[in-house]
Amino acid sequence: MDDILKRRSIRRFVDRDVSAEAVTKILKAAMAAPSAGNQQPWQFIVVRDPASRKKVSECSAYAHSAAEAPVAIVVCGDLSREKHQGYWMQDCAAAVENMLIEVTSQGLGAVWLGVFPRQDRVDYLRKYFNLPENIVPFAVIPVGYPAQELPPADRYDENRVHYERW
Amino acid sequence: MDDILKRRSIRRFVDRDVSAEAVTKILKAAMAAPSAGNQQPWQFIVVRDPASRKKVSECSAYAHSAAEAPVAIVVCGDLSREKHQGYWMQDCAAAVENMLIEVTSQGLGAVWLGVFPRQDRVDYLRKYFNLPENIVPFAVIPVGYPAQELPPADRYDENRVHYERW
Repeated sequence: MDDILKRRSIRRFVDRDVSAEAVTKILKAAMAAPSAGNQQPWQFIVVRDPASRKKVSECSAYAHSAAEAPVAIVVCGDLSREKHQGYWMQDCAAAVENMLIEVTSQGLGAVWLGVFPRQDRVDYLRKYFNLPENIVPFAVIPVGYPAQELPPADRYDENRVHYERW
Repeated sequence: MDDILKRRSIRRFVDRDVSAEAVTKILKAAMAAPSAGNQQPWQFIVVRDPASRKKVSECSAYAHSAAEAPVAIVVCGDLSREKHQGYWMQDCAAAVENMLIEVTSQGLGAVWLGVFPRQDRVDYLRKYFNLPENIVPFAVIPVGYPAQELPPADRYDENRVHYERW
């Protein structure tokens, strides 16, 4: 599947807006992810306001792209929906990966900025958005039109593949 | 992106083999996933032997599909590659989601059987495959040609989307 292989981490964006329709398609892809017992333990905050994106970008030393992209989507875990303990991060990660592939298929770019389980980043975003206890910031996904073109990265390594036995 | 929305958990398979080429494409998709600092903390065990798949299927009460599908791929975390602590499960989850989308795009079916962090399942598979300490069984992905046809599940819920603020 081309878009899976074409997906790269895009950290620089041109000055062009992303439509509400494009964002909704990205969120539809996110919520199409599988989850443990179909618990769907996710919530999303769509941030366009530049001052707010600047604040979000300060959640870590590596999150500057959130200030530059026209949209930053904060993906959160919702522990109140947890039916199968310990799986919500996997579910949210699957949702994020779907977002990144959908982004690629639209000709947009994005990067997965890790938040959870780094407690300082979690605390910072929880405080900034004044989140309830059950909502855990998981990742920040800046989305925009790429200002950089990256070729597909061939990461396939046959040494990682074991047949029948370890 | 159609394949993201079409992906469903397929637990029943027809008696038809999956080619080595198809499996390699699935593993290429897996390894194309992003990971924290590009650490790529994953390993894969491809199991075709029926007796071995039967054993794998006994890792949990919900893993019978591993016995039925012609191939079961055991996705493992490789802690020796961990550069950013606490992120390997997210990286492996992204790899698994890529596998499921690639599977869908090939007209195959698969289901994500959760292993980590359930210690009983981790221990069982670690023992069965005699894995080194740094290799953690993360998930089992049975792959085959679907014996069930499921329509896309529309899981989009606008109540999960928050604009600018929580």
